[in-house]
Formats: sequence, structure tokens, C-alpha cells
Amino acid sequence: MPDRKRPIGIFDSGLGGLTVFKELRGLLPGERLIYFGDTARVPYGTKSAEAVVSFSREIAAYLLAKRIKLLIVACNTASSLALGEIRKVSPVPVLGVIEPGVRAALAAVPRGGRILVTGTTATVNSRAYSRALAAGGVKVTQQPCPLFVPLVEEGWCSKPVAATVAREYLARYRGKADALILGCTHYPLLKKVIAGVMGPRTKIVDSARAAALAAREELAARGLLNPGRAGRSEFVVSDAPERFSALALRLLGIRTGRVTVKRF
Amino acid sequence: MPDRKRPIGIFDSGLGGLTVFKELRGLLPGERLIYFGDTARVPYGTKSAEAVVSFSREIAAYLLAKRIKLLIVACNTASSLALGEIRKVSPVPVLGVIEPGVRAALAAVPRGGRILVTGTTATVNSRAYSRALAAGGVKVTQQPCPLFVPLVEEGWCSKPVAATVAREYLARYRGKADALILGCTHYPLLKKVIAGVMGPRTKIVDSARAAALAAREELAARGLLNPGRAGRSEFVVSDAPERFSALALRLLGIRTGRVTVKRF
Repeated sequence: MPDRKRPIGIFDSGLGGLTVFKELRGLLPGERLIYFGDTARVPYGTKSAEAVVSFSREIAAYLLAKRIKLLIVACNTASSLALGEIRKVSPVPVLGVIEPGVRAALAAVPRGGRILVTGTTATVNSRAYSRALAAGGVKVTQQPCPLFVPLVEEGWCSKPVAATVAREYLARYRGKADALILGCTHYPLLKKVIAGVMGPRTKIVDSARAAALAAREELAARGLLNPGRAGRSEFVVSDAPERFSALALRLLGIRTGRVTVKRF
Repeated sequence: MPDRKRPIGIFDSGLGGLTVFKELRGLLPGERLIYFGDTARVPYGTKSAEAVVSFSREIAAYLLAKRIKLLIVACNTASSLALGEIRKVSPVPVLGVIEPGVRAALAAVPRGGRILVTGTTATVNSRAYSRALAAGGVKVTQQPCPLFVPLVEEGWCSKPVAATVAREYLARYRGKADALILGCTHYPLLKKVIAGVMGPRTKIVDSARAAALAAREELAARGLLNPGRAGRSEFVVSDAPERFSALALRLLGIRTGRVTVKRF
């Protein structure tokens, strides 16, 4: 198989990475995409670095065995804690969601601007965003929002309770940030609610979109873009395939077809 | 070692089972207790029956190897899905939280009374409570409340957002149930909030308390009670021991001391 026809592997702790999948599908209709969601061990955001690294290594090995040409870590927690480890063992390029998100945020604010990073507890504690942003000469504040993932997984993105939870975490920052980074691939599903709490002066930076653009750039630079038109999508999870399929449709309008199960 | 001096094993998906541990510690001060929290794979409530059975079997084997005299499945999801499988392989008695909760609920309402069962999606879907209660001649309604576990794990039990979430799930049942079963070992930590939404006419049945009482009864019937006064407690988790220890203290006032890690 010529290299450019090989698939792209994408993984997340659960269904949040589907926001990256969806952007990628729109940008690169010819690519074959294999998505893995670790639904047996979701969420990652409250777990230790050691556990997240170990889970990520297992999944990377599984996807690499499928002869992918690019691996996208579509999970901020895994990107912030395990990217270095995965790059050590991967013969193909590995792209996380942090670097693209940082670049997009720095482009959105003036030098010296104020950026608020939202994410899981593990992502915030890793300081992956804050270190990279501080190097770009902006002022950074971080806010962990651990209830956002279960809210999304419950399908409550547009219920009043979503706004109550968002206010609990974010009301104190209203009008005080030039940009807010959605530092978790679940959060784009709460974008409207978050934007409402932050007010019109804060730009919302979507790391899912930024990661998909970075993937296209990486493949183009290596001459690996697949120019076809109807690339296949394949979905694999570690547990509960029907639930994954139902939520993918309900929350993101993605029709997965049959979802395979791979247990570790 | 004489049988009565052997420890009691208790397990849960995370820290919810500590509500059972705490009741047990109060009732049976002389017992040696070993608590296991599967913090690498928490929560169980949104996962498949197959995954929950497989996790529960691994943990039961680990605790049985410690020569326990009684195994308490202090997790409603595991009790409803895996109790039969664990009993098949256990040489010692195995106690779940469903049967004691059902007995306590039936004792709290008149025949023909109305009982509302709250729990995780997996517990509700298993129909373990509704089948057992219906056999007792009461009217049963079930309501899954998947956000309650992450709310508790976030330590938000007494924040206004807890009441907002509780109203979202339960307001429609206000005044319409004689008893509500807290069918998840995390839920006793939200007891006040839940009672507030349900109103004064609904009795709140705490399955953690009921399970601890059933354990004492079981040991007494077999002559296995340890008459000592200062039984040791041991805590083991599959991930993030410091976080477990901090939450045990903050939410339940339990001082765990050093928490051991056992990965599967």
C-alpha cells in the first residue's frame, strides 16, 4: 500500500476526540480514519500521570499495528502527559492537541494578552499549556473544570444545568480574558454555554479545530495527503460500543456504523 | 490465624464504598477492614455489564488472596451485575448492597407503597432493584442519576449546583414517593440535597447503612465476629492514592494513612 493511502489513527479517552475526528473528516474527506475511544477507562482527567501514560502506550501500539501514517492524540490529558513517551516508540509522526491549541491562542491575542486555559485536573496540573503559553509572552490563568466531561457524556450540553456548572467555574473570569482555550476535546460541545458566561470580549479557542488544521499541514509537508474523495471511517472502543454509537450520533451527528470492541 | 480474626474485604469502583466502610467501622470497631477502590477504572456506572463483571472478578481474586472472612461488594453497579459471578468463585460469603437496601426499603413503606430507586445507568438498566422490590408488592419507579458520582468526586455536595442537578433528575417525583433508595454508595453524601428536593413525605433509604447492618448480622450468624476493640484499616487503590486519601478525608472525615497501589 502506498504511504499516502495508509490510515490516520486518532485516539481519546472516550468520545471527546470525535470533535477532532469531525473537523478532520471535513478538512480531509479522502483520508481513511481509525478512531479509538478508551471507553472502559474513561475519564482520564482525574487519573494519575502514570496511569494515563500506560493506557496511551497500549492504544498507540494497537493503532501503530494497523500501519497508520500519522497518530493524533485527540485528548488533552494524554497529550499533556504522554506525548513524549508515545513519540519515543512511534515510527510515524505523532500530533497532540496542545501545541496546535497554543499556536491558535497566541495568534488570537496581542502580546501581553490574558489567556484562560480550561481543562481537566490532570491537564491543568501538567502545566503543559501554561508553560508553552508563557513562553509566548502572554499572561496565563488555568481553571480545571472536571464536571464538564460528565456533563457532555450525559448529553446535557444545552440544559440550564450546563450554564449553572459553567458559571460555577468561570463567572469570576467574565470580561477578564482576551481568549479562553477549550483545553479538552469534550469542551467544544459546550462552546456556546462557555462563551455566554465569559461574555463577548473573550475569544474562544477550539483546540479540536486547531489540531485538525495542524494534521493537514503535517501530512501536506510530508507529501502524505490522500487526494481521494470518500475515505472510510472505522471506530473502535474498549467498552460499550452501542452507547458510543448512540452518543456520537446524538451529540455530534456522526453515524459510526458498526463499532468494534478491543479490550486491553 | 483463627477465622474470626481474619479481615473483611470491601470494594467499590472508587471512593463511594467508603460510606459502607464508615458505617462498618462504627458498627464493628474490632474488625480488620481491607478496602479496595478501583480508581484507575472509575466510574463503573456507565460501563458495560461485561466490563464490570471482569473488573469485579479481578478485585475479588485479589481480596480473597488476603484470606478475608467476608467480601462486601460496596458498589451498587458491581452488586447488580457481578454478584452471582463472584459468589461462584468465592469460598467465603459475599454480600452486596442491593439486597440489604431492598429489605430496608420494604420495611420503610406500607404494602403497595411507592418506591423511587436512584442509581447509575448500569444499576438501573440491570433492574436488580426493581425486580426484587416488585416481588415485595410495592410500586417501583427508577431514575438514573449519572452526574451524582462526578458531583461527589468533585467535592461539590453542598454547593448550589448539587441542588440544580438533583432538581433536574428528581423534581418531577416530589411528593410522589413514600421512599427513595440511594442506590449508589456515593449518594449518601448527597442525602440532604436529595431529601430537600423530594420533600418531607419521602423517606430516604441509605443502602450503605443497610449493607453494614447486614454484614454484622451475617458474621454474627456464623460466629465470626471479632470482639476486639481497635481493628486496623487498610486501603488499596488501582491509581492516584494521594487523591483518594485527600477526598476520603475531605468528604468523609476518614484518615486513611498510607494508601497502597495495586494495578491490574
